[in-house]
Amino acid sequence: MIATIVGTGLIGGSLAISLKEKGVANWILGVDQLEANLQKAQELKIIDEGASLKDAMQRSKLIVLAIPVDALLQILPTILDNAGPEHVIMDVGSTKEKILQLVAGHPNRGRFVAAHPMAGTEYSGPEAAIKNLFTHKTMVLCDVKNSDEDALEVVENMVDKLQMRLVYMNGVEHDLHTAYVSHISHITSFALALTVLEKEKEQGRIFELASGGFESTVRLAKSSPDMWVPIFKHNRNNVLDVLDEHIHQLQQMRQLLDSEDYETFYKLIQKSNKIRKILK
Amino acid sequence: MIATIVGTGLIGGSLAISLKEKGVANWILGVDQLEANLQKAQELKIIDEGASLKDAMQRSKLIVLAIPVDALLQILPTILDNAGPEHVIMDVGSTKEKILQLVAGHPNRGRFVAAHPMAGTEYSGPEAAIKNLFTHKTMVLCDVKNSDEDALEVVENMVDKLQMRLVYMNGVEHDLHTAYVSHISHITSFALALTVLEKEKEQGRIFELASGGFESTVRLAKSSPDMWVPIFKHNRNNVLDVLDEHIHQLQQMRQLLDSEDYETFYKLIQKSNKIRKILK
Repeated sequence: MIATIVGTGLIGGSLAISLKEKGVANWILGVDQLEANLQKAQELKIIDEGASLKDAMQRSKLIVLAIPVDALLQILPTILDNAGPEHVIMDVGSTKEKILQLVAGHPNRGRFVAAHPMAGTEYSGPEAAIKNLFTHKTMVLCDVKNSDEDALEVVENMVDKLQMRLVYMNGVEHDLHTAYVSHISHITSFALALTVLEKEKEQGRIFELASGGFESTVRLAKSSPDMWVPIFKHNRNNVLDVLDEHIHQLQQMRQLLDSEDYETFYKLIQKSNKIRKILK
Repeated sequence: MIATIVGTGLIGGSLAISLKEKGVANWILGVDQLEANLQKAQELKIIDEGASLKDAMQRSKLIVLAIPVDALLQILPTILDNAGPEHVIMDVGSTKEKILQLVAGHPNRGRFVAAHPMAGTEYSGPEAAIKNLFTHKTMVLCDVKNSDEDALEVVENMVDKLQMRLVYMNGVEHDLHTAYVSHISHITSFALALTVLEKEKEQGRIFELASGGFESTVRLAKSSPDMWVPIFKHNRNNVLDVLDEHIHQLQQMRQLLDSEDYETFYKLIQKSNKIRKILK
């Protein structure tokens, strides 16, 4: 199968590597707004060939859209306009409700499979693409009842070959749960970096004192605003809701520390420790 | 040299392993309130022998106190009372000001070296002890002018053999900078876990959707309240100060999202990205 990756960055590039390695595709076309990305992706042997979107759609069966969710909103309707029964169009966006609403009534809606692999790193661009990024991670497929059976089968087969765990949700559920489990983590990490940069005027101290713990909580703050602002925009209501809860939890901890109620503070930490059981 | 580790948990146990491996000590005595910890530490060959504190002080030169900072406050004066010119007493506590104040006028103050290795994991107990925990990490030594030269030399030599980066500070600076770089990370992580546990009533979803990013920001929330409540208590003023800044940053992000000012939101994320340059 010939597959096209639109957006040859971290996710698109890593997927290209895996599709080839796991035998899902034997030739990968890359499409990217940035000529430099295409060149880099080819140099790194992530893609076999750069192409225009038009050319890529003529030549390939599977088209994966690995671009920021705002760009996805702009491009997806046109791609579906030009899709035929031979095409499978899949996205990998971090929000789903707006995208699914947008294409809900499209005559070629069935060729589209809405997907979100729960995997990534804080880096971006083709250089950030890595092998096995998706192995043993979760792939969420949304509103699959609106995808044609054969298109869904192509994607499910890929998920299987990539050794991913498959989860089905509707778009509304997806955006709610990812706000809780993924989007809020990024907000806290961005805010933590801003906090430390604001308070720690002696920046050399940050480098000296940063242990694994600090690096781990702050690493998502290296993530690209080009990717994340559109996500927060699309999922604004859910993010605001979980952010309110998070600010409330911090205020509660602040109040307990201020009033020196260490007993309740202890119990709160114990309660937070329950995350141990859930994560493994 | 015979060394004693008081508190054979994550830090004490890992240090015991390194002292032996790097040739700093050839025999390790373990002292622990919990008999089970001692047995486990011996079984895992982390220590050579369990001992009482009294016995251990008679037999060893270097005594490392790797216990929670509240327990340290209680035990350190007695240990100094019984220390002779042959002893070097070192702690590894995460706060310093209160401890240094406590022993400031002690006649044997010179035998004490206040140390804080910027290393750890979210786990605790002897089973959590690991090799090379300290390699290439920072060791902060505080108020060294109040330690006897020969005692300081023993510790500096250890730091060198452990291939650690050495940083000197006074206790007040130490507590300020660690509040910014280490303690606040733990607060944000505990609060994030509480947020997610509060919002995500379908706990299975957390496990399914948790990617590396979520795991990394929330992992410190597995940390023990026995260790952390005393730290927050000792460093209350600095922690409250940085926590206020953190809540302020989150409120600012919340306000920008609420008013849909995505341009300023974008700039804030870009600003937080500066952490990239500082961390490497």
